[in-house]
Parts: sequence; structure tokens; C-alpha cells
Amino acid sequence: MNKMILEEFDRDDLTAMILRAKKRARLGWAEIARKIGMSPTWTHSAATGMNAFPSEKARAFVELLGLPESAVDLLVESPLKVWEQTVPTDPCVYRLYEIVGVYGPTIKALINEEFGNGIMSAIDFSLEVEREPNPKGDRVRVTMSGKYLAYSNW
Amino acid sequence: MNKMILEEFDRDDLTAMILRAKKRARLGWAEIARKIGMSPTWTHSAATGMNAFPSEKARAFVELLGLPESAVDLLVESPLKVWEQTVPTDPCVYRLYEIVGVYGPTIKALINEEFGNGIMSAIDFSLEVEREPNPKGDRVRVTMSGKYLAYSNW
Amino acid sequence: MNKMILEEFDRDDLTAMILRAKKRARLGWAEIARKIGMSPTWTHSAATGMNAFPSEKARAFVELLGLPESAVDLLVESPLKVWEQTVPTDPCVYRLYEIVGVYGPTIKALINEEFGNGIMSAIDFSLEVEREPNPKGDRVRVTMSGKYLAYSNW
Amino acid sequence: MNKMILEEFDRDDLTAMILRAKKRARLGWAEIARKIGMSPTWTHSAATGMNAFPSEKARAFVELLGLPESAVDLLVESPLKVWEQTVPTDPCVYRLYEIVGVYGPTIKALINEEFGNGIMSAIDFSLEVEREPNPKGDRVRVTMSGKYLAYSNW
Amino acid sequence: MNKMILEEFDRDDLTAMILRAKKRARLGWAEIARKIGMSPTWTHSAATGMNAFPSEKARAFVELLGLPESAVDLLVESPLKVWEQTVPTDPCVYRLYEIVGVYGPTIKALINEEFGNGIMSAIDFSLEVEREPNPKGDRVRVTMSGKYLAYSNW
Amino acid sequence: MNKMILEEFDRDDLTAMILRAKKRARLGWAEIARKIGMSPTWTHSAATGMNAFPSEKARAFVELLGLPESAVDLLVESPLKVWEQTVPTDPCVYRLYEIVGVYGPTIKALINEEFGNGIMSAIDFSLEVEREPNPKGDRVRVTMSGKYLAYSNW
Amino acid sequence: MNKMILEEFDRDDLTAMILRAKKRARLGWAEIARKIGMSPTWTHSAATGMNAFPSEKARAFVELLGLPESAVDLLVESPLKVWEQTVPTDPCVYRLYEIVGVYGPTIKALINEEFGNGIMSAIDFSLEVEREPNPKGDRVRVTMSGKYLAYSNW
Amino acid sequence: MNKMILEEFDRDDLTAMILRAKKRARLGWAEIARKIGMSPTWTHSAATGMNAFPSEKARAFVELLGLPESAVDLLVESPLKVWEQTVPTDPCVYRLYEIVGVYGPTIKALINEEFGNGIMSAIDFSLEVEREPNPKGDRVRVTMSGKYLAYSNW
Amino acid sequence: MNKMILEEFDRDDLTAMILRAKKRARLGWAEIARKIGMSPTWTHSAATGMNAFPSEKARAFVELLGLPESAVDLLVESPLKVWEQTVPTDPCVYRLYEIVGVYGPTIKALINEEFGNGIMSAIDFSLEVEREPNPKGDRVRVTMSGKYLAYSNW
Amino acid sequence: MNKMILEEFDRDDLTAMILRAKKRARLGWAEIARKIGMSPTWTHSAATGMNAFPSEKARAFVELLGLPESAVDLLVESPLKVWEQTVPTDPCVYRLYEIVGVYGPTIKALINEEFGNGIMSAIDFSLEVEREPNPKGDRVRVTMSGKYLAYSNW
Repeated sequence: MNKMILEEFDRDDLTAMILRAKKRARLGWAEIARKIGMSPTWTHSAATGMNAFPSEKARAFVELLGLPESAVDLLVESPLKVWEQTVPTDPCVYRLYEIVGVYGPTIKALINEEFGNGIMSAIDFSLEVEREPNPKGDRVRVTMSGKYLAYSNW
Repeated sequence: MNKMILEEFDRDDLTAMILRAKKRARLGWAEIARKIGMSPTWTHSAATGMNAFPSEKARAFVELLGLPESAVDLLVESPLKVWEQTVPTDPCVYRLYEIVGVYGPTIKALINEEFGNGIMSAIDFSLEVEREPNPKGDRVRVTMSGKYLAYSNW
Repeated sequence: MNKMILEEFDRDDLTAMILRAKKRARLGWAEIARKIGMSPTWTHSAATGMNAFPSEKARAFVELLGLPESAVDLLVESPLKVWEQTVPTDPCVYRLYEIVGVYGPTIKALINEEFGNGIMSAIDFSLEVEREPNPKGDRVRVTMSGKYLAYSNW
Repeated sequence: MNKMILEEFDRDDLTAMILRAKKRARLGWAEIARKIGMSPTWTHSAATGMNAFPSEKARAFVELLGLPESAVDLLVESPLKVWEQTVPTDPCVYRLYEIVGVYGPTIKALINEEFGNGIMSAIDFSLEVEREPNPKGDRVRVTMSGKYLAYSNW
Repeated sequence: MNKMILEEFDRDDLTAMILRAKKRARLGWAEIARKIGMSPTWTHSAATGMNAFPSEKARAFVELLGLPESAVDLLVESPLKVWEQTVPTDPCVYRLYEIVGVYGPTIKALINEEFGNGIMSAIDFSLEVEREPNPKGDRVRVTMSGKYLAYSNW
Repeated sequence: MNKMILEEFDRDDLTAMILRAKKRARLGWAEIARKIGMSPTWTHSAATGMNAFPSEKARAFVELLGLPESAVDLLVESPLKVWEQTVPTDPCVYRLYEIVGVYGPTIKALINEEFGNGIMSAIDFSLEVEREPNPKGDRVRVTMSGKYLAYSNW
Repeated sequence: MNKMILEEFDRDDLTAMILRAKKRARLGWAEIARKIGMSPTWTHSAATGMNAFPSEKARAFVELLGLPESAVDLLVESPLKVWEQTVPTDPCVYRLYEIVGVYGPTIKALINEEFGNGIMSAIDFSLEVEREPNPKGDRVRVTMSGKYLAYSNW
Repeated sequence: MNKMILEEFDRDDLTAMILRAKKRARLGWAEIARKIGMSPTWTHSAATGMNAFPSEKARAFVELLGLPESAVDLLVESPLKVWEQTVPTDPCVYRLYEIVGVYGPTIKALINEEFGNGIMSAIDFSLEVEREPNPKGDRVRVTMSGKYLAYSNW
Repeated sequence: MNKMILEEFDRDDLTAMILRAKKRARLGWAEIARKIGMSPTWTHSAATGMNAFPSEKARAFVELLGLPESAVDLLVESPLKVWEQTVPTDPCVYRLYEIVGVYGPTIKALINEEFGNGIMSAIDFSLEVEREPNPKGDRVRVTMSGKYLAYSNW
Repeated sequence: MNKMILEEFDRDDLTAMILRAKKRARLGWAEIARKIGMSPTWTHSAATGMNAFPSEKARAFVELLGLPESAVDLLVESPLKVWEQTVPTDPCVYRLYEIVGVYGPTIKALINEEFGNGIMSAIDFSLEVEREPNPKGDRVRVTMSGKYLAYSNW
């Protein structure tokens, strides 16, 4: 590759820069999210290239972490969402995959019973991760909210 | 296979019998669940062989749907949880798989930030599916609650 | 399996019965579709278990093809949409897979350019297959129409 | 690798250069396409290495974006069309894969009914992506047109 | 499955019937092909469900092998061409797969050099298998002939 | 990697050098093949690392394209033949894979009928690609010739 | 399936019959092989459908085990050699797969060094399994002998 | 990566250095093996990172090929044996895979018949590759010898 | 399949018969194991077809569970050990797979450090599962013991 | 990538630095583990990026091996646990995979029998590798201890 190609950074480089800047700034995702006025889950996914920033949020984020101006252009692009492991190996992520395997047909059956012939959107969708205090040991609560989409007939 | 083997039904036969009996009885999962004192998500997953019934719940369930007495023995067994599609094709189930692919690393990062080095349990775990009324179109809310498990060091 | 399980037919049996009845009746999909007031593509996919019938359409379909009354119950259920070949081998279907491989990123780029950060729905969606007369040899025209869904930010 | 090998850029480098030049020029695919007299879908796929440019179009494209003269040689070559994800993970592209899985057999059945024993070509083929205005929310329309090819008997 | 479903045979049953009838009649594929006026390769592939018979050929074939009249209906249908082994294990078939792996890019390069930007059709296509006498040991000659299809630009 | 390792080029580098030199020399494969006295298909496959050159052919090839002397050593080695896509995605190569899927069992059946219990060799093997003029559009003819190998019994 | 199809047994049925008959006759593979004048490895592979019997050997085998006359027809056919596990799970078979993984490139390198540019045939091939007495524990010796096949150049 | 990491070579670099040094020294594996007092198969596999050298053999090998002193440390390590192709594509290696597919169950059956319930070790194991002169064409003989290991019962 | 084939049961039928007989007899694996003088883990694996019974143990087992005499023949055979899920989905079994993924390289490194260049045998091997009382919640202890096998050099 | 990105090392670089430093220091894992007050298995897995260090252990480890101060930050992070081979090829690791395949269902059955409906945790988990002296050849003992986790019902 020649100079012309190498002169700027790409989205993966940017993700690495963001993680490094965040560590230097000693900021958590919850704090970053609050400062740019978004939720922590959205902020993490957009920062790591799984969602696109609206431009004003991109500028706030770039300023907060001291990233180069040109990072804004990359942050607002619709990313190509790619994951390489069909079955994730990390235990924390695998448990979510296992939940889909075990409870996927249950979720489908209850959506069909309650709403009719349709699905939960993964696009008009939001997600929260919270601590659920519990005397037997605190719990992780993951809440997903997606618009119900009915199949069309034509 | 000879008579000795064929004389009883296996777990898959039982699931088919349950679905048929449910249809004949014109009962929804929510109603069945209420009558046996469990949640709809757990009831569906246990009825379709993805969880084991405690014996008193098995008896109530068998009575409610008019299943043979011997079904209790199968319902209380710890099932071997098997799914055949590594990547589910049904659109309603696939969207959940996609959510794990897109947001799995985000959920992991926020669990680590909030709780430390550990995961959300998929065993000491519960799940609800609810309707979320919304003027722009109602939404599906899926809530997962799993005990936080810290990695041990030794 | 005992009598209790075998007494009715399942969705795959129904599909076989439909194809047989259609052949006996010497009806094409276009004609069946017209008679029940739906499009040919939707009618074929619903008849072969890839979409759910509204109940009045199910009754019209059952009457038209002389199927058993109990078929209505199966036709109106939300089917579990399953395909077994990750990469389809039939040449006619493979060409569609190839088009997704070759032009998928192009379609994504143009949707993003025209609409913003979102996708084409495959649920609020319809599809037509038509003949396109052409002096150099007639062409097949496949038209897909899906609602634009914008990613939510939260 | 020695100097001799590194002195020029390859097709992947060229794609990166094109995307960068397009961003600097603040041009959309529709505008680029119009300026070289081709459609936006073809222009995007050829620019990103999924189709070969006729030489006059290659020269117009190179001039428009200020690419090096030697890019013409690469643009006119028949590319080896490669995609690495058997099942695409990006939601926008996956929906197209899902459509093939759900409706592929339907499209085949209707082609066979209308045309006979044959397929839609993916080579003598064109594709358009358009906005379909709709009061309930605009829609994406994807139109495919491929020559009908009859199987030969011999 | 009930009577209604079982009353006729399907395409796989028919293939088994054909192979059995051929063995009883002590006929080779070359001889069968000659009697129905087609080539041996086409005749074998159509008889085993990988091509569709024109109706007069179907009738001649059914008569020759003494198959039931109703077999004609199945023989003339456009079959769904399915193979289950992504990489074939049978040594005779694997060698063909190996040839595609080793020489596929060579065949592509020479087609592009000789014809331009296009491919060899596998639909408007024929195939012969012949003995090539040779003093060092006879050889198998496989000849493929497919129409050249140029990529369209639009 | 240190200097010692980087001082020479490997087989992949050589392939890149060959393709570059061929383009600079404005030579087609047919012409190169004629000048070294081999067929175009063999020449392409050997040049791109899918066959080994006899040493005199290697020297003629190196001289013709102005490659470094040391390339001869690499050209005469028995290459490890590797392809990375189990199912090729390029349409021109995929059609060959499809032909093996559709017609592989047919080719096997006809070899067994004509020769007995054995296969066509892919090692004592040659291949040609030719233009077949045809008023309805020229055709590509691919001819394979492999020694018949009988299974041994012991 | 109707009567016509079920009236005879297929190759898999025959293998089951052979294993049952062998057990009833209390014969080992070595003894069966000696009685029909072949080696034990060939006899086992042919009996289980991985090789074709010459007709006189088929008749001797059928007589020895008291199989139905019609079994001869199946035993002499060229079988389609199919195995379903890409990576075998049985530990005894897996060790052979592991040997190919670890030592495959070594065997290739030494064949190339000793013979030139070619391979060991798996068709003109034989195999023996023997006991190798050893004071530290007897050993299994597997000897493979395949004709050297040189790649042709053309 | 910084200087600290790059200052030495890793096992893959070493393999490349060995192959280069062997070529410069114009030595075959048989000759190298003889000079260090080991067999050619073991020597090749250990040199290419599929076995560990005893330290005195490592020193002899390093001296013979003029490798850096520090190579000894890498040569004596237990390598992580990795192969990337589940099904090998190189024809010479594939034939070995095919032999395991076709004859694996036969080898297992004969080991069980001769030795009892156990396997051939792939660890306490050796392998030779030899030329078998034959008037019809020389043959490759591969001899494997592995300790019989009986399954334990407990 | 005809009568001759169906007259006896196969290994899978036997496993089903064993599980049914065990349930009728209200016996646990620990109790069965004690009565035949083996460990519970071995008894379960042999009963479900993953190990072979010595003949006296087979007779004791058959008598204890009231199985047919002919079951002894099947129980003493060396089973072909097959599992169908490359990655197990059942959460209890998956955790073991995960442990191999996370700690496999660690176990290898410590075996190499302690014993030298070799492995732990999975054939000369035994396994126990025990309860480990613990005030914070009892634990499962799995103990594996396999003979150390050194790689041979030759 | 620009300077900003390259200025520090990542987790893979750190693993390489650790292995190099360990070799220079001539320390075994057992000795390193003892010096930082942890077990050898945990120490190896944490050092190679499969577990997170508590901060005081990270500091002790960094000091012991003379690593840069900034390594502490990386050592205390919750790693994303990734393995690339679904089925491990290294013989020492594969044997563990094989044990899961053969004995996984046995371990599950005995956990269910002894504890009820639940699993062994792989998170609240520890592992030891020890030498088991034995006159017939020393053995490797692998002991796993994981908290029993009961499935919740809700």
C-alpha cells in the first residue's frame, strides 16, 4: 500500500484510539454516556462501531475524548456490522447465545400469542443493562425493547 | 424396534401431545401458566422440553391438559437441551441471535464495568416477555434477570 | 408413537396434501391466488408454510382445494420458518443467493445514501415475480418492497 | 516482499482509494453514476470490485475522482468475486439473505409456472434500488431483472 | 401420516423404482438413452431427478421401463436440485470437485481472455462422457459445453 | 521476522510478480503457452502455483517474462495445492462447482457402466478450454481427459 | 412408499444382514477373508459397502454366510462411498485422522523427494493391518501401498 | 509491536529459515536424517514444527544447517500442533484423508478383532515412507506402527 | 427392510430399553454400579454405548435389569463412539467444552512442564464425579486420570 | 495505522513478552505461581490472557518477570476469551475435547442424579493438574471443581 492509502486511519484504528483515550481519561461508559446525553449501552456500541452517531453526538464524543476532528466523519457512517464467531466463545457472550438457543422458541411463541403474526424489531430497538440488588447475590438485568412488526399479507 | 421399546412415548411425542391438547382445550400459555402458578415463559419452555418441572407442577399440568399419568415421569426429568440450528433461520428467533451478535460485547463491557470480572448466569436466570404500549406502535419488552457470577481466582 | 399422536396431520403433511390437491385440480398458483384474492407469491409461500393465513383466506383456500376442515387451524398458525441449506444448491435459488453475495453491500450503500442509517424490512415486505417481455429473450422481474426502518438511538 | 512487488497498488487498495476520494469530493453514488452515464447500483458494485468497467467508463471514473491513470487497468479487469461470510451478519444485508431463504422456493415455483423449466440469470442481470413514497412510512423498492434461461435437453 | 398422503409415490420413490426397473430389464444408460432419443448423460440425470423430462420423452421412458402412468407427471416437473455433501466424499465424484478447486481459476482466466467479462452457462449446457482409447491405458473424456454469457452493464 | 527470512520472495510473491510482468509485456496466456511449448490451461495453472514446471520450461518462462533467475527454483517445486473456499463464490467458478453437484453422480454412473469399478484420474489428467462457434451465441467448451484407474482388489 | 419399492432390500439393509449373519456364524473377518481368498481388510470394506466384489467372490461370500441369492447383484455394484463425519469422532478412527493432520505434509514431502511431482494412489491401493509383537506392549502395524502417480504436463 | 517483541524469531520464522537453509545446502530430508541419526519422516515433521527435538538432536541439526544457536531453544519445545484445513485440499494429502474415510472403520474393526477393545496410539507411534519397486509402476509404501492401547474399565 | 433385519434390536434400541428398565426398577446409576462392581461413571457410559462391557459384567448387568439374554452380545462389542454436535448445546455439557477451550492450552503447558513432550491418554483413562461439600454451596468435583504417554522419536 | 495507535502494546504482544521473559528467567509455571501466591493452572491461564489478575497479583507478576509497568493495566482487564479452533487439533488438547464428547452425557447424568436439575459452574471454578505416580507408568490427574448451580423456576 502506498502513502495515499495510509494517510488516514480506518474504523478499527479509531476503535483502538477510543479505547486508549477512554483509559487515559479514566472514564467509564456510564460517565461518557451521561456527558453526551445517551445511554451507556448505545454509547458503547456506537463507540465500538456497531451503531452510527448522529453528528452532534459525534462532535461531543470527539471533544470529550480528545480525538482528532476527522474522527467525526467515521463515527457518523452507517457501519457494516460484522462478527466473526458464529457461536461466540467468550463465556459472558456465550451465555446470551445459549439463552437464545434455549428460550428463542419460547419468546417467539409468546410474541405470537400476545401480538399476532409478527416479530420484535432489532432495528427500532433499545437495550439496557442494570444491577438488580438481591440479598442472595446481586443480579444482572438486561432489558430489550423492540417495536412489534406485523408480517404483511399481499 | 420391538414391542418392548414402542410401548411408551418419549419426550418428543409428549411435546406433540401437549401442543395438541392445548389446542383442543383452547388455552393460551398465559392462562396455563396462571393455572399452575408459574410464569408464561417458564411454562412454555418446560412444556416444550427446555426445562424440568418440579413434581407438583408436573401433576397440575398433566391434570389441566388431560395428559396420561405417565407423562409426569418425563416432565420432571432434566432434559438434554438441544437445538439444531447453529444460526436460527426463523426471523423472530434470528433477531435475538442478531442482538447477541451486535450487542453481546456491549453487554459484556457493561457487566464488567458495573460488577467486575464475571458474567450473568443463564442457569440462575429468569425471563419475561411483555407488551409495552406505545403510541407509535406497541413494543415487545424482553427482560432477562440472571445472577451475577464472579470468576474465581485460585 | 401411539394413536393419540398420529390421529391428525402436521404442517409438512398439509403441504404435501396441498401440492397433491393442486395437481389434481389442475390449478396454477396465479389462478389459486386470484380466487382467494391474494398475490401469487404470497399464496405460494403461505401454502407451503412460510407465511400464516388470515382465517377468512384460510377458509377460502381450504374450500377451493377441497382440504379437510381441520387444515384451517394449521394454516392460520405463525409458522416456524426453517430452511436447511445455508447455501441453497438448486440453481434457480442459488442465483438469488449469489445476487445477495455480489450486490448485498451495494444495496446497503444505496439505502444508507438515500434514506439514512437503517434497513429495508423483510417483515413489512412484499414481493412480486413477473414476465418482462424482451426481444432478445424475455426476462424475469423480481420486485421487492419493504418498509424503511431507521435504527433507533437511545 | 521486495520492492518489485510493492511498487503498485492492488484492487483492494484501489477500492480504499476510491472510497476516500469519493468522501473528499463529497459526491454520492447517484451523482457519480449520473456523471459517468451508468446506474447507481452498477457504479457502486463496479467501483468496489464486483463488476468490470468498460474502458471508456473506467477513464471517465478515474478522471472524475482524480485517481491515478494506472487505476484504469485494474478497473477493466474481470474481478474474482469473493465474499467471506456464507451468512452475512450485517442486518441490512442479512434481511436480503433471509428473503432468499423464505421466498427462494416461491420465486422458483413461479418462474417454473410462468416460463417453464429454467431460471433467472444473475449474469445478464440488472438491479435498481429506489424510494417508494408511502404515507405509513416510505419503502425501499429493489427491482431485479434477469434474462430467463431455459435448461437445455440433449 | 394418513392414507391421503401415502396413496402416491414421491420423486425419491420414483428414482428407486427406476433403478430397480432398469436392473430387471438389464438395460444400460446408453441403451435407454438411445431408445428414447437422448444422450446417456442427460438421460441419467433426468431419470435420477436432476433434470426435467419433456412430456413425450417422459412417456417413452415410462413405457420402456414399465413404470406406472402417473410417473409421467413427476418426470416432467422442474425438480428442486439438492445435494447434501458440500464436499463430495465418493472418490469418483471428489476428483471432479478437486479439478474445480485446482483448475477453476484457470478456466475463469481463459474464458475472460478469450471471450471477455462473462462466464460459461451451467443451464444452457450439455455434457458428454466418453472412452478415449490409449495404449498406456484408456482414458475418460468429459466434455462440457455451455453458452458464453456476458455480464450486463446498466 | 528478521532480514535472513525476508531476503527472498516466496511462491505468492512470485505469482504476483508473474501477473505484473505478463501485464507489462501485454501477453495473453495463449501466447505465453505457445512460446514455451505448453497448453494455455497448463501454463496458467503452473504459473499461478497449481502445477510444477519441468526445469527447461521454467527457464523458458523466466526468460520470456524477465523474472529473476532464482524464480526457477520455486517454479519447479511441487506446490502445496490449497484453495480456501470450500464452495467457490465467484460466479464463473461456482458454475463448475454446480456442475459437479448436479452431474457428478451421472459422470460416476457412466464411468462405471463403460469402464467398470474405477474412476477418472485427476493427476494423469489434462484440460482444455475452447471457443465453440454457434449461431445462437458462441459456447465455451471444457474438455477433461483423465486416465481410467481401476480399483484394486487384494 | 408402496409395495413395489419395499419388496427388496437395499445396500444398507444388506450390510446389517451381513453383520448379523457373521455373528450367528461365529466367524471373524480374517477367517471369512481366507475362505473367499481375499485379505481381511479388503473383505471387511467390501462387505460393508466400501468396495465392489468381483462376481465370483460375491457368490462365494453369499454362500459362506447364507445370504439370499439376490445379494450378489448388490455386492458387485460400484458403491457410492459416503462418510458423514468430516472429522471422525470415534477415538480409533480419529487417531488416523490426526496422523493425516500431523504427518500429511511430511508424507507429501518425502514422496516428492523420492519420486518427483506426484502422489500415492488411493485407488490402485491396498492396505494391511497386523500385530507387531513387542516386549513393551504389542503394536498395531498399518501398511498402505499405493501406485505412484506422476502429474501430467500438457 | 515494539522492539522488545520483534527482536527474536518465532517457530514459523524458524521453519522458513530451515527450508531456505536446506535448499542452499542442497540436502534432501533422507540425507539430513541420516546425518543426525533419525528417520526421514521424523526429521521432516520435527523440522517443520510437528514434533519436538531432543536437545542433542537439535544441536546437531542446527550445526548441520548453519542455523543460529538460539534455534535450539525453539526446536526442543513441545509444539502446539495446528492444521488449518479440516479437509486437506492438496491432492497428495487428500488421498490420505480419503483413505481414512473409506478404510477407517475397517482398520477399527480389524484392531478390535485382533487385539480387543482398544486403539492404535498416534503418540507412541512411528511412520515410514518407502519406494516399493513394481514392474507395473513403482509404488509408495507408508507403514505406520503404533502401540496398541486397551481401554481401561474402572 | 424385511423381517430378517427387523427380528432383533440394535444398540440404540438397547440403550432405550436400558433407560426404561432402570426407571421401572427405580435404580440410580450409583446403585447399579455398586451391584455390578464398577464405578458409576463407567457404568453409565458403558450402558449408553460409549464403552464395552467385559462379558461377566455384561451378564450381571443384564440380569440386574431384566434385559433379554441377547443383549449381552451387544454390550460386549467395541462401540463406534459417535457424537453429533461438534459444539454441544446442552448447558451442562457445554460448560465442559468451554473449560477445554479456556483451559486446554493451560493443561497442555503444565503436562509438558511436569512430564515432558507427551499427552494425557483418553484411553487408559478413568473419570469420577463427586459431591464436594462447601458452606457457600456444594461443588461438583470431576477427576480425570489418564496415563502419561510420551511422544516417540524414531 | 498512525503513531498514536502503535505507541503501546496490546494483550497479544504482552503474552509474547511474558513467554519470552519467562524463558529468559528460566522459570517454570509452578515456580512463578508459588512466587505470586497462586496455583500454576490459574497463573498460566491469567498470564496467557484467559483470566484477569487482581491488581496486587498483577504487580507481583510484572515485578517478578521484569515487565513494563503499563502491563499491569492490561493484566487486570476482563479478557475477551476467544479460541479459534472449534475442534482443537493439538493431540494433547484434542484428548480433552474427546473426553467431553465421550463422557459429557455421563457427567451430566451423574450431576443430575446426585444434585438435581442443574450444572457445574465453569465460572466459580478451579482446576488442578498433577502427577499421579503409578508403577505401570505415571498418570496425569486433572481435577475440576465447580460450584453446583441449580436451574431456577419462575
